[in-house]
Amino acid sequence: MNALKLIGIVIGLSLLSCTEMTSKHQVSTEKVTEIKNDIQRVEPPHWWVGFKNKTLQLLVHHPEIGNATPQINYTGVSITAVHKAESPNYLFLDLELAENTLPGQFNITFQFEDQPDLVQTYTLKARSQSAEDYVGFKSSDAIYLITPDRFANASPQNDTVEGLLEQGVDRADNYARHGGDLQGITEHLDYIEDLGFTAVWPCPVLTNDMPSGSYHGYAMTDFYQVDPRFGTLADYKALAENLRGRHMKLIMDQVANHCGLQHWWMKDLPFKDWVNYQENYEKYKSDWDWKTTITSNHRRTTNQDPYASKIDYKEMTEGWFVSDMPDLNQRNPFMATYIIQNSLWWVETLGLGGIRQDTYPYPDKTFMGQWAEAIMTEYPNFSIVGEEWSYNPLLIGYWQKGHHNTDGYQSHLSSTMDFAMQKNIIEALNEEESWDQGLIKMYEGLANDFAYTAPKAIMAFLDNHDKSRVYTELNGDLEKTKMALSYLLTMPRIPQIYYGTEILMDDFDNPGDHGLIRTDFPGGWHGDQVNAFTGKGLSTAQKEMQLFLKQILNYRKTSMALQEGETLHFAPENGIYVLARSVTNETVVHIINKNESPQDLELSRFEELGLQGKTLTNIVTHDNIVWDKTLQLKAKSSVILSYKVAESL
Amino acid sequence: MNALKLIGIVIGLSLLSCTEMTSKHQVSTEKVTEIKNDIQRVEPPHWWVGFKNKTLQLLVHHPEIGNATPQINYTGVSITAVHKAESPNYLFLDLELAENTLPGQFNITFQFEDQPDLVQTYTLKARSQSAEDYVGFKSSDAIYLITPDRFANASPQNDTVEGLLEQGVDRADNYARHGGDLQGITEHLDYIEDLGFTAVWPCPVLTNDMPSGSYHGYAMTDFYQVDPRFGTLADYKALAENLRGRHMKLIMDQVANHCGLQHWWMKDLPFKDWVNYQENYEKYKSDWDWKTTITSNHRRTTNQDPYASKIDYKEMTEGWFVSDMPDLNQRNPFMATYIIQNSLWWVETLGLGGIRQDTYPYPDKTFMGQWAEAIMTEYPNFSIVGEEWSYNPLLIGYWQKGHHNTDGYQSHLSSTMDFAMQKNIIEALNEEESWDQGLIKMYEGLANDFAYTAPKAIMAFLDNHDKSRVYTELNGDLEKTKMALSYLLTMPRIPQIYYGTEILMDDFDNPGDHGLIRTDFPGGWHGDQVNAFTGKGLSTAQKEMQLFLKQILNYRKTSMALQEGETLHFAPENGIYVLARSVTNETVVHIINKNESPQDLELSRFEELGLQGKTLTNIVTHDNIVWDKTLQLKAKSSVILSYKVAESL
Repeated sequence: MNALKLIGIVIGLSLLSCTEMTSKHQVSTEKVTEIKNDIQRVEPPHWWVGFKNKTLQLLVHHPEIGNATPQINYTGVSITAVHKAESPNYLFLDLELAENTLPGQFNITFQFEDQPDLVQTYTLKARSQSAEDYVGFKSSDAIYLITPDRFANASPQNDTVEGLLEQGVDRADNYARHGGDLQGITEHLDYIEDLGFTAVWPCPVLTNDMPSGSYHGYAMTDFYQVDPRFGTLADYKALAENLRGRHMKLIMDQVANHCGLQHWWMKDLPFKDWVNYQENYEKYKSDWDWKTTITSNHRRTTNQDPYASKIDYKEMTEGWFVSDMPDLNQRNPFMATYIIQNSLWWVETLGLGGIRQDTYPYPDKTFMGQWAEAIMTEYPNFSIVGEEWSYNPLLIGYWQKGHHNTDGYQSHLSSTMDFAMQKNIIEALNEEESWDQGLIKMYEGLANDFAYTAPKAIMAFLDNHDKSRVYTELNGDLEKTKMALSYLLTMPRIPQIYYGTEILMDDFDNPGDHGLIRTDFPGGWHGDQVNAFTGKGLSTAQKEMQLFLKQILNYRKTSMALQEGETLHFAPENGIYVLARSVTNETVVHIINKNESPQDLELSRFEELGLQGKTLTNIVTHDNIVWDKTLQLKAKSSVILSYKVAESL
Repeated sequence: MNALKLIGIVIGLSLLSCTEMTSKHQVSTEKVTEIKNDIQRVEPPHWWVGFKNKTLQLLVHHPEIGNATPQINYTGVSITAVHKAESPNYLFLDLELAENTLPGQFNITFQFEDQPDLVQTYTLKARSQSAEDYVGFKSSDAIYLITPDRFANASPQNDTVEGLLEQGVDRADNYARHGGDLQGITEHLDYIEDLGFTAVWPCPVLTNDMPSGSYHGYAMTDFYQVDPRFGTLADYKALAENLRGRHMKLIMDQVANHCGLQHWWMKDLPFKDWVNYQENYEKYKSDWDWKTTITSNHRRTTNQDPYASKIDYKEMTEGWFVSDMPDLNQRNPFMATYIIQNSLWWVETLGLGGIRQDTYPYPDKTFMGQWAEAIMTEYPNFSIVGEEWSYNPLLIGYWQKGHHNTDGYQSHLSSTMDFAMQKNIIEALNEEESWDQGLIKMYEGLANDFAYTAPKAIMAFLDNHDKSRVYTELNGDLEKTKMALSYLLTMPRIPQIYYGTEILMDDFDNPGDHGLIRTDFPGGWHGDQVNAFTGKGLSTAQKEMQLFLKQILNYRKTSMALQEGETLHFAPENGIYVLARSVTNETVVHIINKNESPQDLELSRFEELGLQGKTLTNIVTHDNIVWDKTLQLKAKSSVILSYKVAESL
């Protein structure tokens, strides 16, 4: 572990102390005469009293700590077991926290036969809000997904940090660090809130001390540390608190499947089975020569396939996601506990409004069920979305909690990702209309909702940090992009929109290129010629899209029809697709006209919407129309019309 | 009703009398002094004692019969209700058959106020076998699908029948009658059995007295009459009995959704809602001018879609399949009973081994559940397969009995059709291999089996009477066609093969053309230059395919591994896909090598098959190989290897 990280943790701990220990919560009267940090690493670095689960397992990492006997003398805290690892430098302590244990600090004394004691002061904090108040994202939210390195650089001084493997920033290199940071997000929350978003999902911001490509954040080398190039834990907490003040939610992007190859424990692995294919890793550590059996076969269907061979399943779940991301072995019970506690630690520390779990089908699925259950048990109103990158609705449905799975699998995941509808929408808008092509793909795709336990709790999107941008996928067609977005925000889902979509960011130069997809947001860097935050230098089309999204998102914020309403749609006919959402006093109608010419839509077919003679408002232009015999639709356009019953006195 | 049809029924009735009334079953001693047939039509034309359901509803059709009062005097038979229709020419009689009612005949006397009585003699037969002995098709079967008009013409004298609307045969016209008949099938059962098939599914053979295109059989104009151009009821029974003698099964192709426009009742409809969109039909009967609202919108997903509009659902289920096929209204309770009784009548009359129900998602789905339940209640070991022409596994799964449907729908259908795998197999073999194309489509398609309640009870196929032939779809590639067929016969399904596949019949001249797909089977007509039954004039490739299929099908007949075995498959790698089926004492391995070059397959990956050091036999060539380090695979080939533990003494 390098010095800087240690400093980071100490800063983190002291900041936490400042924030929470001086709060009005009661603090144990038991005294710790002196705070000692003799030990290199104890994780979780602190904990809380008041969780439903009263056990806590500490990972202690220190030279020869395996030979020590730990002791704790604090009312309510007892050591129920001490586990040595296969490396002498680890000790795992099982603590039991009795009901009503008071927050406070205590020392853990490590006694050795042949050397002086070591002492580590450990803190148990009071929880700052009740478990029920951790409310997760849901269909009333609209989520803004951000690649933090590429959004806004508020602190150029942290762009490069001495001691880390990857140095420097280079905005001309799509795979280098560009300097965006947490403070950059925080400083632009006015913009995001003003657009109408209610939740922010930044891609991972924990330390990725990797020699290259570390900007994306998915190769974590420390699960308890904010990457100093993104800022500090205080910055992360400031973002969380600022969002909370706006009644917006922070979603954390977590990775239970793998770490970065430079993770600190890769230099001194506690067990022979701490990571999967560890033997192969040990063998090749000095002589880099990856064999295919180390990386995953990526055959994700082996999780469900009743006929999958054992070897395919093993290669799928145990294989490394890529060759510089060791695969964590969640069947090692210490690893399992480590991951669960790490997730709880972040939820509690940041007051999260949700977790996005990366590469959901890759870790051991039984463990993932336990992981999700552990979180949902502690935070009953929380939300977790798992990434299953599959266009197959059977797989999307399989992972959502409550689904009747023939193998008996019980998932506790509130939300899955709708890659299927993403593909359907793009195809629907790009294809020529015919019997089984074009808009029918959206219509029949949504019809598949009968197979889901909770369609409204599924996350929908048109693109993300891994996929070519929607404007590119729709060949730079502004109107089609509007159709896609207005549908996304009208359908019964939790919508997620990738930063920059509102200004038509694209990857035309090399469609699908990850670095290019994650282009810098204009205005995020001092001196940017174009500033999308202020509108300076934006094209007419960009401004139009910004305004378009803003109108819909802000309408959606208070629209019970769009958030919770019943859905009704009509099979596309003649290139026109009508979908409606409604509650008792509000009906919202979304209409796509894919035709290159204006259309007069006969309204008699839509009688069951109950809108005859009503006046509806276009939520973007605020024009009123009367729902009568026909509706005039502009050539190639989408429209969202709203009918609200006036509030009674 | 034309005279010929009446004659047909009378012949049918008398034949039934010959066959069954003179059997050793006891006959009621109550006497009917004279058999009277004063009434134009009573349906069902006879019935049986001993069904679980003790009620029977007779449809009586005769001028002004609505004014009559019916009477029956027969021990155990009582009239519980008499229903008039909206047409005066119908009467529906609800009969209750008491437990232990004896078979026999009785008169139904229809009394009028102002005219003499009419008398109809009605027969209750004894059942010829127990309900449990009607065993349906299952995964131990292989089904030969035949278009009867195009398979073999045993009786040229019935090619054209005076009085029917479509006259003449013209083998040069793909949409005209060609003359094939039931006797033609019966006469070639040796061929079919010898190939290794265990069940025959002829497309419908009931009367289609339509002015054109009547050869296909799906526009029935009489649900109780064999089309005289296909033969007689006696011919149909002869086919059934001949098959039974071979322990083979007869599957009847039934249509509950619609009839032909020339159906006898279309001239005098009993109720205003006997067929759907009847009002529009009445309006336009004299002035043929179909509006789109009469034909179905064919949006089959409205059956499942939780968001489907009422109008789309109505147009789907009530719209006519095509404009000359009136849509039966199964929500009319008399129609519902009519269809159920008709199905039971045919199962009982022919001793069927299964029903194939046409256009399954088109009739009222609640009724279809009741229909299937009624049949399965009477025949607990029976099988029914419904045609849902969808490539979406969600829909395939929805219709199979026992599936957990979110809308609570209870299907009683034992089998559905696997259009999804049909598409997967064709694409898998046509596409270039890549990460997500080629063989992976078959592999991932089969992985979807986790979503089905009973995958082995699903019917799989490569083509049928509505789809371009597999040899055409695979671009005339003999080896790929073999791969498709050997996979079809190895996977956990009920395989169905369309007649002529064994001699590589094709529709290259106009791919997908229905008339061309249903080309005459060579040798089925007197004077045919080529005779596939004898092999005369077949090409080497045709003979090779015949032999190939024969070897696999005959192996399959006694292979518990292929019929019932556990399935295990390995993700395709390098263009090679391995699938195995196994029971305790038998393992069958199917391997496709799509490469254009021979491959040495390393066998270490397949250790879990437990075949190390075993000797396996190629079931087509009968060559033996030892399962050791590597297996030599021929370029572009498929192979089925079998390992059987020798029977112990």
